[in-house]
Amino acid sequence: MKIVVKISGKYFTPIDPIYAEELSKVLKEIQSQGNRIAIVVGGGRTARDYIKPLRELGVNEGHLDLLGIRASRLNAYALALLLGDLAYPEIPGSIEQFLEYWATGRIVVAGGFQPGQSTNAVSALIAEAITADTLYNMTNVDGVYTDDPKRNPNAVKLDELTISELKNILGRKSANAGTYELFDRLSLDIIERSKIKVVVLDGSDPKNLIRHLGGEKIGTVIRPD
Amino acid sequence: MKIVVKISGKYFTPIDPIYAEELSKVLKEIQSQGNRIAIVVGGGRTARDYIKPLRELGVNEGHLDLLGIRASRLNAYALALLLGDLAYPEIPGSIEQFLEYWATGRIVVAGGFQPGQSTNAVSALIAEAITADTLYNMTNVDGVYTDDPKRNPNAVKLDELTISELKNILGRKSANAGTYELFDRLSLDIIERSKIKVVVLDGSDPKNLIRHLGGEKIGTVIRPD
Amino acid sequence: MKIVVKISGKYFTPIDPIYAEELSKVLKEIQSQGNRIAIVVGGGRTARDYIKPLRELGVNEGHLDLLGIRASRLNAYALALLLGDLAYPEIPGSIEQFLEYWATGRIVVAGGFQPGQSTNAVSALIAEAITADTLYNMTNVDGVYTDDPKRNPNAVKLDELTISELKNILGRKSANAGTYELFDRLSLDIIERSKIKVVVLDGSDPKNLIRHLGGEKIGTVIRPD
Amino acid sequence: MKIVVKISGKYFTPIDPIYAEELSKVLKEIQSQGNRIAIVVGGGRTARDYIKPLRELGVNEGHLDLLGIRASRLNAYALALLLGDLAYPEIPGSIEQFLEYWATGRIVVAGGFQPGQSTNAVSALIAEAITADTLYNMTNVDGVYTDDPKRNPNAVKLDELTISELKNILGRKSANAGTYELFDRLSLDIIERSKIKVVVLDGSDPKNLIRHLGGEKIGTVIRPD
Amino acid sequence: MKIVVKISGKYFTPIDPIYAEELSKVLKEIQSQGNRIAIVVGGGRTARDYIKPLRELGVNEGHLDLLGIRASRLNAYALALLLGDLAYPEIPGSIEQFLEYWATGRIVVAGGFQPGQSTNAVSALIAEAITADTLYNMTNVDGVYTDDPKRNPNAVKLDELTISELKNILGRKSANAGTYELFDRLSLDIIERSKIKVVVLDGSDPKNLIRHLGGEKIGTVIRPD
Amino acid sequence: MKIVVKISGKYFTPIDPIYAEELSKVLKEIQSQGNRIAIVVGGGRTARDYIKPLRELGVNEGHLDLLGIRASRLNAYALALLLGDLAYPEIPGSIEQFLEYWATGRIVVAGGFQPGQSTNAVSALIAEAITADTLYNMTNVDGVYTDDPKRNPNAVKLDELTISELKNILGRKSANAGTYELFDRLSLDIIERSKIKVVVLDGSDPKNLIRHLGGEKIGTVIRPD
Repeated sequence: MKIVVKISGKYFTPIDPIYAEELSKVLKEIQSQGNRIAIVVGGGRTARDYIKPLRELGVNEGHLDLLGIRASRLNAYALALLLGDLAYPEIPGSIEQFLEYWATGRIVVAGGFQPGQSTNAVSALIAEAITADTLYNMTNVDGVYTDDPKRNPNAVKLDELTISELKNILGRKSANAGTYELFDRLSLDIIERSKIKVVVLDGSDPKNLIRHLGGEKIGTVIRPD
Repeated sequence: MKIVVKISGKYFTPIDPIYAEELSKVLKEIQSQGNRIAIVVGGGRTARDYIKPLRELGVNEGHLDLLGIRASRLNAYALALLLGDLAYPEIPGSIEQFLEYWATGRIVVAGGFQPGQSTNAVSALIAEAITADTLYNMTNVDGVYTDDPKRNPNAVKLDELTISELKNILGRKSANAGTYELFDRLSLDIIERSKIKVVVLDGSDPKNLIRHLGGEKIGTVIRPD
Repeated sequence: MKIVVKISGKYFTPIDPIYAEELSKVLKEIQSQGNRIAIVVGGGRTARDYIKPLRELGVNEGHLDLLGIRASRLNAYALALLLGDLAYPEIPGSIEQFLEYWATGRIVVAGGFQPGQSTNAVSALIAEAITADTLYNMTNVDGVYTDDPKRNPNAVKLDELTISELKNILGRKSANAGTYELFDRLSLDIIERSKIKVVVLDGSDPKNLIRHLGGEKIGTVIRPD
Repeated sequence: MKIVVKISGKYFTPIDPIYAEELSKVLKEIQSQGNRIAIVVGGGRTARDYIKPLRELGVNEGHLDLLGIRASRLNAYALALLLGDLAYPEIPGSIEQFLEYWATGRIVVAGGFQPGQSTNAVSALIAEAITADTLYNMTNVDGVYTDDPKRNPNAVKLDELTISELKNILGRKSANAGTYELFDRLSLDIIERSKIKVVVLDGSDPKNLIRHLGGEKIGTVIRPD
Repeated sequence: MKIVVKISGKYFTPIDPIYAEELSKVLKEIQSQGNRIAIVVGGGRTARDYIKPLRELGVNEGHLDLLGIRASRLNAYALALLLGDLAYPEIPGSIEQFLEYWATGRIVVAGGFQPGQSTNAVSALIAEAITADTLYNMTNVDGVYTDDPKRNPNAVKLDELTISELKNILGRKSANAGTYELFDRLSLDIIERSKIKVVVLDGSDPKNLIRHLGGEKIGTVIRPD
Repeated sequence: MKIVVKISGKYFTPIDPIYAEELSKVLKEIQSQGNRIAIVVGGGRTARDYIKPLRELGVNEGHLDLLGIRASRLNAYALALLLGDLAYPEIPGSIEQFLEYWATGRIVVAGGFQPGQSTNAVSALIAEAITADTLYNMTNVDGVYTDDPKRNPNAVKLDELTISELKNILGRKSANAGTYELFDRLSLDIIERSKIKVVVLDGSDPKNLIRHLGGEKIGTVIRPD
């Protein structure tokens, strides 16, 4: 099985040794079961810390994005080092480079690719290019809700929904920002056109990945229509 | 002055020697006046011809986009050869590589960068990264209309509009496809966030570029709000 | 066993889905039998279509060759995509880069390398560098004839001949152009000095490759002296 | 004149907009006077923050250095963005790559090169390779002292000394750590063998660079014997 | 004016300081007169010394050529170092890479490109790609003779001849080996198709280059028909 | 088991076919037993021959080192060719590039990395980065002595010593130059901080490597304290 795991940059900025070790173990275990894994890590606080002063100094948005991308690659590099010989020792700068690294048979850890898009979009691009079985999005929510749970007490977490249904929810003004962040436009376009199965999981516990792969009903599954 | 010129791939597939010569002359003249130029060329018919049979054979959309990108780079390479010593002799594979080539002082000719986005988005990314004065979009329409001129006889070509106004027009179902093609979502996002001035010109006559630079009222100017 | 397969660009310009699918199947089958395969694809009509207008505009022959090389790499890229995970996802730009890709264990698909030489020469350079067992040349003739069969009704197809004998035939003015195209000077030099076994096969049916590997007497075998 | 400016990573982690703007101005001014500038930035707190958790997890020292090097390159990238068109838009990974970027005529900003050496050593390697007139080390001390000023109230700041004298001071056990950090072994070896003139300046005020270039007696000059 | 200078590897293996200094001076002087220069250096004795033992051990001819190419690049690197800031600090691996280095405005020094061809062919490929005014071949003969002067006392050095006439001389069995070495097949093909003006000069004195550029009647000029 | 083998450049300049064949056999045998091997080759006489005339001409020490590094890479390339498909077909330019090549599973052969350090330091950097079990230093002495055996008849070869003990010996003025050359400062720093086990062996007989791996008491083992 081929899976892509998108991990929020927040879990790497700063790096928590306990989290990092747990994550490494989980990924090594999944890999050892004959699966192939691509990982995408966000820029998190490091990205924000570097971008803020440069924005104040008038650096353009394209360059700020490039700076954030470099920060996300630093996070990716740290994770690649933790995975040791299982991971390819360089961070790809584009989907074309990703595919070259992928051809070596190793886990490839990516950060950002290009200004104007999130690392979620990167994970969708990778999932499409390797025809991944599942794209896991490990983030700070434990699934997709019918509405913003912080504002609407009647909001319900969904176990499963289709991309069309997801787009309906995202179309509503009150949908929660967290969900939006998971699915910027490019992500949605790619997921939809290539019918990629996405699973949203609470990223604070890396073991959720193993739980879901083992059949536990956690997170939210987004299926092609 | 720094300008980005996006040229539809249709003018390169096949390459018409008269058009190509005219375009080279125009670009050389603009360059000789002390301006810096970046060019983006679409994939046109070559892209479509290569993509079609592979789509029939079940190649995934991400890979098909990569194939179309390579076709657009072939078009870009042909144009770079026509520009001779004025152009950098390689075609960039990403915005980061573009910036390296741009640092040599030469005209840089780009094709596509990444799946999931048009070469129009590439031109917006470049315009943002080099803080271009103007992004020229040389295409098969002579400007932006209030509605699809093929369907609505009352549609009027606009001399100038703001990005917000443009988004309103694009929001209407009946807006013409040609306009849509000029502004995919990423293009619009970039143009808006970085307040890039865009000029839509009829690309069938390369001299329109010189005409507009010389002050003639042609095409449509899209200004930041 | 290590084999190099040179395929005429004509079978890729335009790409015929039926042919492309058949070819992929054949290559996958050969690969699955434990053989290693390198493929070289010519530029075909795409190369000619891009070169013609630029030649009219006075672009020098070296640059025109570079343009044709890029066209052949587009063909190679399309074939690499069809082969999916079996093929390395990039097209080498030189024999040195070819050897790096080859080291990953994947099928490597090449186009042209350098101005002043054909893609047949590329296939000979590769066959030499990997000490291939056989170099298959899949082309528009079904073998080597004693003379040009279009002009001389007594011309006979040869089952087997030595390189010296081949050179004698090529030395005759009436030898058919098709044969000449198979063996430009650099190809012959390489084949001769490294005693490479070459098999000329009718390329219009990819299965001829499997037929020959299976022991059928088709095409023409050129053996070292 | 060709100068190399080494700036402590502490001034970039976090980036202080006022400092960063001041530094950019200073470098632009020096550049505008016809000088050529190479800059090296340390990893600072970002490097330490990333290294610490990975060291706890048992990552080897070589890999930890590589991680710190990546952090220093992130700092370098931020500075390159601030310098805009004056700087080469990529960060070199080795002295060989540095020389390629340097050949474009732009300011080149470097971070670390290799495990087992400091970014001070990088600045010495660069100063040697471009035969720089002066290597400025902008750091958290305002010069070289006869002894550690924190421990020895009689320690005196030197206006000028030779490399031999410097080595004598460094040989004393009580010499201050700050000075040691400025001159790891490789730095000293390079400075000595290539007779590089080094100036130690208080890095907290970028204008010190202009002051010294303008003839003010600040910092400490280390001259070849 | 754009010139390509091919220098026999024999003058670099071993490097004679007096020769090397003289050559640097000559090239710097020509460069300072507003000319652009590309240089190609052969592998000479270093190439032969490395190839011989590996051939004895059965390494294939393609790999031996690659080894010789690396030796020629070592010679090229030494010369680039001698030229300092005038030369690009890397040695190109292909004509495409050469053109990228050439775009920086510096002198580019090349060695070999590819197995199966001489460094003379490399110089012809470069001359064609940059549309050089003249390709100088600095070698161990002082010009082209009507026959092999060592065997035929009536052999006469020619001041000028056409490529057709050159081919006639090369076609004769008794033509001297030295001349043959100057013009392998690929060189001749390129020179002929792109009508490159070639001048054969005695390479033992670098000043011959300046003499010829200054109008002195030395060496042999080969003109297109 | 992962081992790094440093081989003195003297055994490659010139290449002795008998030695080279023996070495290839030894490495192939060790590789076939499931070990992974990295090799580092020095520059030897080729490096000295190229450096000498350029030093006379005033080329700076940094550039001279770069030239020597290129010479060592030529030696490395020759050895890689001898190892054929077992070795990666390119020579890494930095530890980062080394790790990419290493990820392919092949033997990687390196030369020098950077000015200011020996190829012994390169071997230590590699041993650290891959957490090698043993770093073999095949050189012109058969082990570490208590003193310089050429000067002191009472000098005794040690079977084993700790790094601290080694540093004590190196601290003595009379210690033999050969030993010093094995351990420049960076080598010692790396070996010490990463507790790398080093074995010094007489490099004139490649079989010593197999002997030591087989348990024979030859050479000197340097253990972490």
